[in-house]
Amino acid sequence: MHKKLLIPGPTEVGSAILHEQTHPMIGHRSREFSEFYAGVTGKLAKLFELPAEYQPTTTTSSGTLWFDIVGRSIVKQRALCCVNGAFSQRFAEIVRSCGKQADFIEVEWGKVVKPEMVAEKLETGGYDTVTMCHNESSTGARSPVAEVGRLLKKDYPDTIFAVDSVSSMAGDWTLPHEMGVDVLFASTQKCFALPPGLAVAFANNRALERAKGILNRGGYTDILEIFEFEKKHQTPFTPNISLLYALDKRLDFMLAETYPHIYRRHKDMAEITQKWAEKHFAMFPEKGYESITVSCIKNTLGFNVKDLVQKLGERGFEIGNGYGKLAEKTFRIGHMGEWTTAGIKEVLNAVDEIWGLAK
Amino acid sequence: MHKKLLIPGPTEVGSAILHEQTHPMIGHRSREFSEFYAGVTGKLAKLFELPAEYQPTTTTSSGTLWFDIVGRSIVKQRALCCVNGAFSQRFAEIVRSCGKQADFIEVEWGKVVKPEMVAEKLETGGYDTVTMCHNESSTGARSPVAEVGRLLKKDYPDTIFAVDSVSSMAGDWTLPHEMGVDVLFASTQKCFALPPGLAVAFANNRALERAKGILNRGGYTDILEIFEFEKKHQTPFTPNISLLYALDKRLDFMLAETYPHIYRRHKDMAEITQKWAEKHFAMFPEKGYESITVSCIKNTLGFNVKDLVQKLGERGFEIGNGYGKLAEKTFRIGHMGEWTTAGIKEVLNAVDEIWGLAK
Repeated sequence: MHKKLLIPGPTEVGSAILHEQTHPMIGHRSREFSEFYAGVTGKLAKLFELPAEYQPTTTTSSGTLWFDIVGRSIVKQRALCCVNGAFSQRFAEIVRSCGKQADFIEVEWGKVVKPEMVAEKLETGGYDTVTMCHNESSTGARSPVAEVGRLLKKDYPDTIFAVDSVSSMAGDWTLPHEMGVDVLFASTQKCFALPPGLAVAFANNRALERAKGILNRGGYTDILEIFEFEKKHQTPFTPNISLLYALDKRLDFMLAETYPHIYRRHKDMAEITQKWAEKHFAMFPEKGYESITVSCIKNTLGFNVKDLVQKLGERGFEIGNGYGKLAEKTFRIGHMGEWTTAGIKEVLNAVDEIWGLAK
Repeated sequence: MHKKLLIPGPTEVGSAILHEQTHPMIGHRSREFSEFYAGVTGKLAKLFELPAEYQPTTTTSSGTLWFDIVGRSIVKQRALCCVNGAFSQRFAEIVRSCGKQADFIEVEWGKVVKPEMVAEKLETGGYDTVTMCHNESSTGARSPVAEVGRLLKKDYPDTIFAVDSVSSMAGDWTLPHEMGVDVLFASTQKCFALPPGLAVAFANNRALERAKGILNRGGYTDILEIFEFEKKHQTPFTPNISLLYALDKRLDFMLAETYPHIYRRHKDMAEITQKWAEKHFAMFPEKGYESITVSCIKNTLGFNVKDLVQKLGERGFEIGNGYGKLAEKTFRIGHMGEWTTAGIKEVLNAVDEIWGLAK
């Protein structure tokens, strides 16, 4: 039996979108492709209300490639990396593995790095880039990206702000100019509700200016080459054409639903889940910083999460155990993409029944 | 009207394979995924007769990512790069853009770099890696990889041989151990006849040993992390699950056809095309080094290639003009993947008719 996915990703993909992947192939250097791809990036620009100084792109990769792109093409010498979970840590470690200095501001899992903590470190000087993870899928914590963005714009205008929006973009409210970010990227298997294999990213002119001064950007990780090809509505390397068809259709759906409504739907799903969690358990993340796409719930009653995952699986739903060291101590419900409040209520009811929780 | 693709890639993909992309999503950290993925890599190992010292993998990327992987994870300090066309040159340039020294052995487009030329350069010392492109899609030239491989094994056992097999793997005869290569990689949109978005690669223990001593390999470009995750039949980053389903089905088809038969079929298609070309025109590549997957034909009669491409398009076929500076001077027919001799004859007949060539 197929289990409908409520893990923090990949999320469930409906058959209409899956079938968009079956279009016959076309050449990626053809005029037909360029016209099609210009439509896709045009829809991205529209949905995310991109001002002229921001440009959209896609890469044939997971979102993680962008950790490397930031490490190779954006960080000059020294980055300040906000670390509050497994994915923000990986971002920081990859920047370091690209041969750049990466200083961590590390807080306990579940907490978020606050603007004042960033300000304090930046005052010591010498940082050319700040990295942050908007939505820490490992802990369900939502970082105050816009507040940090405002701080940087005001006091550190030469610092580039590169943000992982992998599990928040297009579910949470992620307009790059409102967030004050220079580079923002995501994977398609989260709130875009597509199969994995494609990343969506935005960069502004400041980020591209910065890249021009950096040596050894590589090929696949060269942000300048990516946006150079965007000018002719192509990609430097053969793209995943099937997934671009699926993305195109998804963007049609999203533009029809409208972003404010998509955001509201995700917020509603999160609020239902949080309310349920607070009644029986507790939310894992710091109060006020709960993700609206992935709820991470503290297993305060000490139930057997592995058993729950198994039993929910028998009912056709797949949720996530806690990540790494948080396994059994927490469990995670990803409510993103095609999911609605009705679906989430059904899943929570199933948990009530399995664990015998009073309604 | 859909045009059946005979460009040098992407190639035509039949609907059975396209539909394999519509399986519902599963979690990439689930046991179900690992069992499935172990099956895929097991089939790759079987088809390519991998001895124990070689391991197969896939990456969610175009084949080009492997230029970066070689540049970041394999080249220590100085590579000798065989350059005989646009793609081998790009390989060399990307190695250089990874901050490593890349010396070119450059020959005229259409020619190939011979083992004695490699030997002469290697004698000067100091090279830790040799790069080569097995099948130069821009010129239709097929490099003598196995001969160079033998030379390296015999006289330069510490040198790693990294070969781009993007448009040859699984059509031409590309068993990595027979070729004497340490790293071999390809894209799925060529002879595997899948949509683009996935790369297939093989590396041996020598290559992985080499990588251990190299700093700043990055994340997405770290060959050691890729093969570390292979041990548990996973990928370090969320993979393109849809394309892995398609690859799995394709490998079933290929194992049923058997590799010797697949190779014979590609050779037959090349021979028919070459014979036709020699009758009316001439082959572009150096005699004896013609590709068996992409025929590059010299336009000796000075016909209008752009017009031919257009008129063939009206008949439902898409072939390629010459690459870059070879446009109009040559034209290219990609005969790979699902194509058969009957299909190729049909296309050549159509060219006969359009250009009024006597049979």
